[in-house]
Amino acid sequence: MLIFTMRVQQETFEVRTKGKGTYEITDEVQAKIDKSGVQNGVVTIFVQHTSCSLTMMENAAPAARRDVERFFEHLVPEGADYEHDDEGPDDMPSHIRMVLTRTSESVPLVDGKMQFGTWQGIFLFEHRREPHWRRILVTIIGE
Amino acid sequence: MLIFTMRVQQETFEVRTKGKGTYEITDEVQAKIDKSGVQNGVVTIFVQHTSCSLTMMENAAPAARRDVERFFEHLVPEGADYEHDDEGPDDMPSHIRMVLTRTSESVPLVDGKMQFGTWQGIFLFEHRREPHWRRILVTIIGE
Amino acid sequence: MLIFTMRVQQETFEVRTKGKGTYEITDEVQAKIDKSGVQNGVVTIFVQHTSCSLTMMENAAPAARRDVERFFEHLVPEGADYEHDDEGPDDMPSHIRMVLTRTSESVPLVDGKMQFGTWQGIFLFEHRREPHWRRILVTIIGE
Repeated sequence: MLIFTMRVQQETFEVRTKGKGTYEITDEVQAKIDKSGVQNGVVTIFVQHTSCSLTMMENAAPAARRDVERFFEHLVPEGADYEHDDEGPDDMPSHIRMVLTRTSESVPLVDGKMQFGTWQGIFLFEHRREPHWRRILVTIIGE
Repeated sequence: MLIFTMRVQQETFEVRTKGKGTYEITDEVQAKIDKSGVQNGVVTIFVQHTSCSLTMMENAAPAARRDVERFFEHLVPEGADYEHDDEGPDDMPSHIRMVLTRTSESVPLVDGKMQFGTWQGIFLFEHRREPHWRRILVTIIGE
Repeated sequence: MLIFTMRVQQETFEVRTKGKGTYEITDEVQAKIDKSGVQNGVVTIFVQHTSCSLTMMENAAPAARRDVERFFEHLVPEGADYEHDDEGPDDMPSHIRMVLTRTSESVPLVDGKMQFGTWQGIFLFEHRREPHWRRILVTIIGE
């Protein structure tokens, strides 16, 4: 008789951002996986906001992250003539930058560890100027 | 004896678009989840086309959606000198806009509900001028 | 008594790239699914690098792929004034192009086949000039 032990575990944590920029959350996600005890499957990371987003990035070179951040400042400038600006000049650019990056990311899980490459990390990409609490959902499916 | 009740359910629906723009599909996806009875897991939404895409968006401010749409009109203009234009000036921009946004999105499911933030919704982003039927696949994995 | 047969299977393969461009990997991913025997679920494709990425694309028109590649050459040019250029002029653009595209993609699986639309295929998007071995992880969850 076959009995499989697949299961799902949901976890949540919050990140305090201090204005625009990229904030690595790899360790926080891995801690939730460790707690779950799931060894083999997929972890889905999801950010519950439309004015920040997720991105994978080089985790060793801060200069590379600053270049990414500057690129988005130029591609989606604050000074453009947006129709929607209820919350100030960084309001509409935050939504567009979110659309151009990611809200969910799915990462393979083997022997309890996310299978990142050597330089890969997962980051919260904050697009607002003011500090925010950002809510991240971690769903672990596996055995 | 442990017996787990993890399962997978596949659902499909179609959206009728009336030219370029964003069309919210949150309710259609949630209806498929309700039908499945799955309470806890992940739902993967997938669009079966290369000339439209998916995006998360602010669901309360139509002006914000119009700004996103205008941004893509400028970033990937119809008038550029594309090699591939078999189906008209909106053909190649539609593929590039798809590449810059998303084909699949994965959303956590808790107590039978997608765990969106207050202002989050999921949208089909139509990149073609003519009306189209667009096919969305919903895969629900959970217990 | 209900006993479900959900399971997870992890597979890996490598792609040899010959410089910048898009390389279709649909057949390689499907071969791993065939080997797994899983019929119904989701396959998550994940690329273990930050200087290449994944994208869905039109798989029938090479001209469309060349237009996408040219678009990214213009949007994220090699000649820009990047702070991070340790590995040459294509170093920083490779990371930004990755951020603008995808690291993971999730595709529904029905009757053992990925549920792509007629013209959909999945591609590795190489952003570096030199040839590289690129590692792709395929996680199949289903029954």
